[in-house]
Amino acid sequence: MAAAAPPPPPTPTPSPAFTLPETTPIGNPMFVRIRLATKSDVPHIHKLIHQLALFERLPHHCSATESSISATLFNSPPFHSFTVFLLEVSPHPFPPTPHPTHPFYPPTINLDLPVSDPEKEVFRSDDNNDDVVVAGFVLFFPNYSTFLSKPGFYIEDLFVRECYRRKGFGKMLLSSVAAQAVKMGYGRVEWVVLDWNVNAIRFCEEMGAQVLQEWRICRLTGLGILVVHLPTARETLFYVLYRRKLASIFIFMVKGSASGRRIPVAPRNMRQYSTSRHKKIHLLLRRRPTQC
Amino acid sequence: MAAAAPPPPPTPTPSPAFTLPETTPIGNPMFVRIRLATKSDVPHIHKLIHQLALFERLPHHCSATESSISATLFNSPPFHSFTVFLLEVSPHPFPPTPHPTHPFYPPTINLDLPVSDPEKEVFRSDDNNDDVVVAGFVLFFPNYSTFLSKPGFYIEDLFVRECYRRKGFGKMLLSSVAAQAVKMGYGRVEWVVLDWNVNAIRFCEEMGAQVLQEWRICRLTGLGILVVHLPTARETLFYVLYRRKLASIFIFMVKGSASGRRIPVAPRNMRQYSTSRHKKIHLLLRRRPTQC
Repeated sequence: MAAAAPPPPPTPTPSPAFTLPETTPIGNPMFVRIRLATKSDVPHIHKLIHQLALFERLPHHCSATESSISATLFNSPPFHSFTVFLLEVSPHPFPPTPHPTHPFYPPTINLDLPVSDPEKEVFRSDDNNDDVVVAGFVLFFPNYSTFLSKPGFYIEDLFVRECYRRKGFGKMLLSSVAAQAVKMGYGRVEWVVLDWNVNAIRFCEEMGAQVLQEWRICRLTGLGILVVHLPTARETLFYVLYRRKLASIFIFMVKGSASGRRIPVAPRNMRQYSTSRHKKIHLLLRRRPTQC
Repeated sequence: MAAAAPPPPPTPTPSPAFTLPETTPIGNPMFVRIRLATKSDVPHIHKLIHQLALFERLPHHCSATESSISATLFNSPPFHSFTVFLLEVSPHPFPPTPHPTHPFYPPTINLDLPVSDPEKEVFRSDDNNDDVVVAGFVLFFPNYSTFLSKPGFYIEDLFVRECYRRKGFGKMLLSSVAAQAVKMGYGRVEWVVLDWNVNAIRFCEEMGAQVLQEWRICRLTGLGILVVHLPTARETLFYVLYRRKLASIFIFMVKGSASGRRIPVAPRNMRQYSTSRHKKIHLLLRRRPTQC
């Protein structure tokens, strides 16, 4: 008896996941690139900084201009001084061009709906590909831990434009800085958050970062710096009056003078102030005797 | 009648303050110099860092060695990267030698009693003058404000040895950094204090600094940095096992596999780990299909 023919093997249901390469997912794919910014990106960085100031409701504190950014950034090798990573997105894969330096390619994300970007034209990247748009940035620079005797990175700003938020881009930007820190053997990545910004603190905790509750930042700024480094009260007062153009001739009478001699004295650090202005200044003061 | 001779004019009591030049006050003068540290000062800086760790009761967090300090400091021009100012004191005036770079000479102070320094020999400066002793240091580096689009200085550590405290040396060190910031046209000087350190907060306020109560520092360190920049959980777990030498052959079974194929996969960022070790590693895993 001839053996019954075996039943045909079941046709395996093809899995759609493996019929397409990973780089072209179904839906509304968004390809992501994080790359080192250069001087030619300053107009984008300037606009992003102003959007950040608006987001933090501090536009009156923001005095950044394109020329001031150009003058202070990109003057040193990246990672050893102030460094900017730009986040770029595109509906099409990025060509493997050698143009962008230090590029990171986070995983492509898939959206239910394409992003409607009202500022697409303004934030169009300089890349040859017309669809590439700048969506965010991170500015960071090296800091140092004496206890570890190792450098780290401090993130000054991390910002994603409104229409690209809640898609994991913040984490991608932070990860790119962390990856660079690991590559350079650095010990820490730090940043600051506002204590009432619940989302920022949640993000911080999700990243596995420790929130240092006990530390407070002290900041000397503007006149504060000048006042500190001027060693005496008379010089501080002199400087304030000088800046306000009230002190072309300023007689400062210090109580407790023993001799009453009038000695023309230029305050310490006078030179650095007078270099910027050429007004001749006389300071007549009664010098307090040295206390023994 | 002859007029009575007028009484002799009273002999003015000579003021000792004006019989001596300002540089040699009476008492126990202490001459002060703040100068830029160099690589030859590393042994002193190392000892100061460990004293700071003891003062903060964190000696177990301090892993700084002379060689790690040497490797990470003084590799870039001062003020543009990590910079150290040393505070030196001497009972005699500092000779006007061109040897120390960027010296500041704060006012000489006068003490009721000379300072008894039990570690005078250990902290003797390399200066030709045998009486010069290193009394403290400040380590700072440039930071950046995007809103001002200006650099500033961040003070990582400011430390004065115990026997030299409460003499104004902390203010002198801070002032020297502020003076440098003014000289370079920088916008801010910042540092952090512990919220329970009443003395540090008082010092901060006396300096005219603003204490930013609302900001909290977030810190990613050690494994945290690696975990953030590794994009997926499977790679994180793989990396942890790899570091612990548990993963020479590691089969990671991810639930939800559709195909059941075993694909040898090197995790992303594998290259940078494998450069340091040459052990051959196989990772066999069932890949989760791309979610559409």
